[in-house]
Amino acid sequence: MTRPKNDTLLRALLREPTPYTPVWIMRQAGRYLPEYNQTRSRAGSFLDLCRNPHLATEVTLQPLARFPLDAAILFSDILTIPDAMGLGLYFAEGEGPRFERPLREEWEIRDLSAPDPHDALRYVLDAVSQIRRALNNEIPLIGFAGSPFTLACYMIEGQGKTDFIETKRMLYARPDLLHRILQVNAQAVSAYLNAQIEAGAQAVMLFDTWGGVLSHAAYQEFSLRYLEQVLAGLSRTHDGALVPRIVFTKGGGLWLESIAAVGADAVGLDWTVDIGEARARIGERAALQGNLDPAVLFAPPEAIERETANVLAAFGSGSGHVFNLGHGVSQFTPPEHVAVLVDAVHRLSRPFHVV
Amino acid sequence: MTRPKNDTLLRALLREPTPYTPVWIMRQAGRYLPEYNQTRSRAGSFLDLCRNPHLATEVTLQPLARFPLDAAILFSDILTIPDAMGLGLYFAEGEGPRFERPLREEWEIRDLSAPDPHDALRYVLDAVSQIRRALNNEIPLIGFAGSPFTLACYMIEGQGKTDFIETKRMLYARPDLLHRILQVNAQAVSAYLNAQIEAGAQAVMLFDTWGGVLSHAAYQEFSLRYLEQVLAGLSRTHDGALVPRIVFTKGGGLWLESIAAVGADAVGLDWTVDIGEARARIGERAALQGNLDPAVLFAPPEAIERETANVLAAFGSGSGHVFNLGHGVSQFTPPEHVAVLVDAVHRLSRPFHVV
Repeated sequence: MTRPKNDTLLRALLREPTPYTPVWIMRQAGRYLPEYNQTRSRAGSFLDLCRNPHLATEVTLQPLARFPLDAAILFSDILTIPDAMGLGLYFAEGEGPRFERPLREEWEIRDLSAPDPHDALRYVLDAVSQIRRALNNEIPLIGFAGSPFTLACYMIEGQGKTDFIETKRMLYARPDLLHRILQVNAQAVSAYLNAQIEAGAQAVMLFDTWGGVLSHAAYQEFSLRYLEQVLAGLSRTHDGALVPRIVFTKGGGLWLESIAAVGADAVGLDWTVDIGEARARIGERAALQGNLDPAVLFAPPEAIERETANVLAAFGSGSGHVFNLGHGVSQFTPPEHVAVLVDAVHRLSRPFHVV
Repeated sequence: MTRPKNDTLLRALLREPTPYTPVWIMRQAGRYLPEYNQTRSRAGSFLDLCRNPHLATEVTLQPLARFPLDAAILFSDILTIPDAMGLGLYFAEGEGPRFERPLREEWEIRDLSAPDPHDALRYVLDAVSQIRRALNNEIPLIGFAGSPFTLACYMIEGQGKTDFIETKRMLYARPDLLHRILQVNAQAVSAYLNAQIEAGAQAVMLFDTWGGVLSHAAYQEFSLRYLEQVLAGLSRTHDGALVPRIVFTKGGGLWLESIAAVGADAVGLDWTVDIGEARARIGERAALQGNLDPAVLFAPPEAIERETANVLAAFGSGSGHVFNLGHGVSQFTPPEHVAVLVDAVHRLSRPFHVV
């Protein structure tokens, strides 16, 4: 095992001391970067980009060339799994992801099975290996997947929604069918993340983008329970090193304690949560990742510095904080504002790490 | 002062004993009812319907003819205030509300002033009086307004959004301008609700539909503070009776204690909150209103009964609970499922009110 030269991310996720607060940014390789848009147009579609390990590596590295970020994250999409299940992922230009064959019939749900990641998702694993080689052990690489529930939302609706009527209709009227989908998804996500770890991912993150649309009770039964299954199925170490797990339920601020309790090393926070209060609630049970409002990056540099300082101060002294936005960076963000943010985190966090 | 014959709503809002849990439903007069759609098409546009006191009374009464609800709520729209400020409200068919003249320039914000409700909003007050007469003191009438922050979102964006980029850009870059808008809005909302109380509203509700998009700190500064100003400006009693105030911040589950602390008699809950935990957090400081997931109404009657029973049991014994959905009823809801819900609340709640 060789820890990366900059191991602040891995140390912070495991609540070990670091000289400053590490920072990375959800969707850091993305449309706010002109070089990303160039590669994207060379690739063809967004999916062509995801499926080409060489180009996926290229865009993964782009933000690292601009900003001294403390981690890389695999460039991919959470919907590669249902695509590998045969649902037919596509992206209508200017709209979100869609499936050609969403789950409509009971027999389709009964027939669903977890894909072998070494087969249908080989292209992702190749990207992970290639990115690891390109990173040359300078900073760690984060792998990721969608949560079983979030994947189910897209698989049932066929696209992103705000109210998820069909998913909830199934949840309340035919919970047995939703549980069947979630069991298959949990198996698939575990196998997929283990394959990413095997290929070189040094930490993994579960994105539960839609868990926050559920009622308190339904969240426990239909999202958290399957996050727990995924985590229980993951390799705890690889090559002698612990592989930390980050779990992020957007809109899950009320449920942080229960997220920490199912085996997350770090809990992701959206920007609605006061990170100081979250720390008081979670205590020593997990590290925290977050949680600046992405909209702060539309404001001038002074405001970005001020709001960054507020998040750092709210968390307070000591280890266990990975700085991030509370959601993916907006495509309308000026890249130079991201530079201001990264610099501010590194500079302003040092006083909080004096031993 | 004469309390309405069925005063369970008013009693529950003030945490006085009731024989059962009162229930009303956000958007209970609306598109899921065929008779509403008929009146609506007779009226012309949605706005024509709001502006015609006779027709507004008609649709307010429609759900009461079907279901034994414990309250009526004024049929109107939260955007009547910015419309009266001259922003030019209109509804594009099949889309949400829009403004012809959203706030774009600093001078427009400086020129903004609170409308006299007895002038530009006379039609709402006429509707309140007419509905009160039609109700014949059988059940109470709830008046309502949007929160200063939620109104500001529409006034700045010109329409509903999911990310509110322009509002947040102003919040972080020019907080002075946003505060100016919010001050005017708070004045306007207080005056408007006082006029509704004067005209006969027996309880009032503030809808903070978009407060939940804010960070913890920004919510306190830009939404809650102005909710507090509105409440401080409201008539506490009318005609010898206390006028209870309900405050509902959608997505505000993390901030319930602070909402109760600014002078709300009852705190509205969306469905992501466990109402039992909310009760434990708020204690004797306020009543609670909510919070069934509106999607439950897509499920069969057995599931509706089961989920209703779960909410009632989570709240537990004693007074201080007004049953409602956690958000407005969906236009795709079968009306007969609303009947099942109302009956279930009345029937299943009695054991929780035995003295």
